[in-house]
Amino acid sequence: MTETPSPAFVFDLDGTLLDSVYQHVLAWQRAFAEIDIDLAVWRIHRRIGMSGALLAPRVARESGHELTADERDTVEQLHGEYYRESLEWVRPLPGARDLLVGLREAGVPWVIATSGKRSEAEAHIGKLELPGDPEFVCSEDVTHAKPHPQVFLTAAARLGVDPSQCIVVGDAIWDLLAGQRAGMLSVGLVCGGYSREELERAHAFRVYLDPADLHASLDELGVTL
Amino acid sequence: MTETPSPAFVFDLDGTLLDSVYQHVLAWQRAFAEIDIDLAVWRIHRRIGMSGALLAPRVARESGHELTADERDTVEQLHGEYYRESLEWVRPLPGARDLLVGLREAGVPWVIATSGKRSEAEAHIGKLELPGDPEFVCSEDVTHAKPHPQVFLTAAARLGVDPSQCIVVGDAIWDLLAGQRAGMLSVGLVCGGYSREELERAHAFRVYLDPADLHASLDELGVTL
Repeated sequence: MTETPSPAFVFDLDGTLLDSVYQHVLAWQRAFAEIDIDLAVWRIHRRIGMSGALLAPRVARESGHELTADERDTVEQLHGEYYRESLEWVRPLPGARDLLVGLREAGVPWVIATSGKRSEAEAHIGKLELPGDPEFVCSEDVTHAKPHPQVFLTAAARLGVDPSQCIVVGDAIWDLLAGQRAGMLSVGLVCGGYSREELERAHAFRVYLDPADLHASLDELGVTL
Repeated sequence: MTETPSPAFVFDLDGTLLDSVYQHVLAWQRAFAEIDIDLAVWRIHRRIGMSGALLAPRVARESGHELTADERDTVEQLHGEYYRESLEWVRPLPGARDLLVGLREAGVPWVIATSGKRSEAEAHIGKLELPGDPEFVCSEDVTHAKPHPQVFLTAAARLGVDPSQCIVVGDAIWDLLAGQRAGMLSVGLVCGGYSREELERAHAFRVYLDPADLHASLDELGVTL
């Protein structure tokens, strides 16, 4: 019999394991309003999953504003403040904890890879109430944020697994584009607010509703618990 | 020459003229959390555009909760309170005012048709800073909310225009389904957070980004200003 390599999972955090996308979106809107830039909220939503350093100038430009370096710093800082105010309303997505624990118990390796900052990642992972200290890669560990593949390649190296054996799980098209660039298959979850079609057009290998739906469908990916 | 009837527009309000969808979504999440029901936020987003009386039990049921009549009343009332708290962040969508004023000046009739309550509709329409008191139909004017066609048929009657000459403009698939049921063509706008594909699959005649994009594309609909 041919030996088949075990897969490993690389999980995005915001919108994939944690129900935090909509709070992030409105925190960005308020931050921009504070520097007198009114942005349409859906345009922010469609850029979520990029790091703040990429998102802020891009969304501003789409609305006809070129941010100065000072404005970019201000808006990033205000976003962080407003997001922390809404953190109490951020919950794990349905099935997130069970999925991660189930994979761990079955010996399937996984790691979390986020564009967010370390402090925010730690607060979010705390909400998942996982046993032990799960491995994660965050913005401080890389020089390029998604959709650059560096964060996922760093995550694979952390696991000691070849990228070709990794499956990215993400809710944003930027996760799926970065996964493709990293030579990984990508699974899309609609629970971040992107539609199935948007995820499929960004090369999702499969699309599920949320972590619970992925958990119930692992056999479709050739993973048996 | 054959005389061609003039078209008339029936505009949805939340997510179509006003950038209020994301604030509504998080107000519902907080309202449900208050009665100890944690809901995934994207599921609420995908029901926005239905009236609260339809949305609340439906979203709860999707997450395994059957609301009592008391719970439904409580959650609707809390949603209203939390939404009003965030009203200061609600802005007109790009081009909304110019579109409505431009149509009015060109003699193209239009009316606003919302599932929202009269008080909320008035506060929203105030933000558009339109000249005069624009005609609108709201939840108090009908017994059935979208996707039932009653609100759009009432709007057409208000204009004295045959439904077949009305074009619905909405951001939610519920607007487009109600438009189809009312015998009207429907235009979808992605500025409420639904994707182009979701709107097209709900029978959108055409899809545009936001009111400004629709304004620039009116000739595609056979409307010349």
